[in-house]
Amino acid sequence: MIGYQGVPGAYSEQALREIFGVHAKAKPCADFETVFKGVASGKLTAGVVPIENSLAGSIHQNYDHLLKHAVTIVGEYSLRVRHNLLVRPGVRLRDLRQVQSHPQALAQCAKFLRTLKGAELVPHFDTAGAARDIVSDDVAAIASATAAENYGLSILKAGIEDDASNFTRFLVIKKAAKRGASNAKGDQKTSVVFSLRNIPGAMHKSLGIFALRDIDLFKIESRPLPGSPWQYLFYLDFAGSVADQPIARALAHLQEISTFLKVLGSYPRTVTRTYNSGRRRRG
Amino acid sequence: MIGYQGVPGAYSEQALREIFGVHAKAKPCADFETVFKGVASGKLTAGVVPIENSLAGSIHQNYDHLLKHAVTIVGEYSLRVRHNLLVRPGVRLRDLRQVQSHPQALAQCAKFLRTLKGAELVPHFDTAGAARDIVSDDVAAIASATAAENYGLSILKAGIEDDASNFTRFLVIKKAAKRGASNAKGDQKTSVVFSLRNIPGAMHKSLGIFALRDIDLFKIESRPLPGSPWQYLFYLDFAGSVADQPIARALAHLQEISTFLKVLGSYPRTVTRTYNSGRRRRG
Repeated sequence: MIGYQGVPGAYSEQALREIFGVHAKAKPCADFETVFKGVASGKLTAGVVPIENSLAGSIHQNYDHLLKHAVTIVGEYSLRVRHNLLVRPGVRLRDLRQVQSHPQALAQCAKFLRTLKGAELVPHFDTAGAARDIVSDDVAAIASATAAENYGLSILKAGIEDDASNFTRFLVIKKAAKRGASNAKGDQKTSVVFSLRNIPGAMHKSLGIFALRDIDLFKIESRPLPGSPWQYLFYLDFAGSVADQPIARALAHLQEISTFLKVLGSYPRTVTRTYNSGRRRRG
Repeated sequence: MIGYQGVPGAYSEQALREIFGVHAKAKPCADFETVFKGVASGKLTAGVVPIENSLAGSIHQNYDHLLKHAVTIVGEYSLRVRHNLLVRPGVRLRDLRQVQSHPQALAQCAKFLRTLKGAELVPHFDTAGAARDIVSDDVAAIASATAAENYGLSILKAGIEDDASNFTRFLVIKKAAKRGASNAKGDQKTSVVFSLRNIPGAMHKSLGIFALRDIDLFKIESRPLPGSPWQYLFYLDFAGSVADQPIARALAHLQEISTFLKVLGSYPRTVTRTYNSGRRRRG
């Protein structure tokens, strides 16, 4: 059973099915914490959670959960967020009186919605719930293709978002292994979180650890800790696995200068790509 | 006239009034782009826009707008996001049948809302609009204290958010000056955006420019550019003003190794602090 946050048809479920295949046993959870707790306790075999969006940025809450719960990252996946106009089968554009969805999804489709003169926009808790709650033929929802399948709806128009560069990166999490890292080698990526003393150049020194060993960095982000004006958390993604000797040595070196360090996982690296309509099976 | 995104009573308006005072002439705008365009063209004397939230992360769209429009950052302000339960005057908790707000605000007050047994939660486009649209005595909204004032409502309960470490950092923007930077000295901060060739250690070299000159870094964030798998934008905030010689030299040095560099502004640095109920006049 693989957990995700949201109701059936959520974009997280769509990511989950693209990763694990259409027949995966998916378990909807009320909030992110329920996914992390379920994975850490072994009640869920895995979880799929969003970690950053190309328009909205990193989802700090999920970094907090990665810190707090005994889970490890075992994979990542970039989902192209493709909004669709869903209706009951047979309904045409000119029949519509109302379009419902999460306010953010409605905002991301503003240009298209302006062409639907006269249709009232109605806010909803989430995109998939908006699809589930279509009660008549003059109502449409903006949601994922997975929501259309879940609720027996037709995709009247696909890809109605204003900005095609809308991607969400999801992480696949599993219960933290007792013996630490996976042995997988090859094109791997490792994510860590650490904090440094706030002395000038501390950040530069920590990156020197990677530069001196020619290790590629993919992501770096600092986050001030509320209530501790001079304390920061750094999120770093870099090339390689903790099973590789140079990476293990770099992390031992980072440990020396950190006040705190947690390895969040080593996992196969995927390259962002466009998702169209077909489904892919991976992993 | 100072622009902000949202309807009257939005948290952005609250930030604006804490910065410029209660009597400031505030202009609500439909979207962020309208604020940036208005400031760049001179139609607005300034704008107040959110740039990052302590729970949700950086707002990448506004970094994009900072890049695209001829504006400069002249100030920053951290607003403690304090959700309040607003009702018509005289209404009591036990009268409530319905609570409406933006889905994110409702989610951020989940613990409190569970104590209101039987009250239905209703999603709305935005917090301030939910306050404006209270149509009867059995309806409450979750919104800012400024929304209560705007719409003649009472604050039945203040600070109902689950997580008190919810801060949003706002930037004050003005039309870009022809002669570049302000001359303000003292406790200043500078924000830049740049990109580097993707060679190992490029990031380390760019931070070396600051480390070698003992310049404190406050924020660093990398953002992959969609469609360009190896190209990143870096956002960097550091201590000092472009009017200071060491900073000017560091930026000339950064220019040498960047494929692109834009100085977003030098401005007085503020320290994050808790906002309670009173209003403060600044700037």
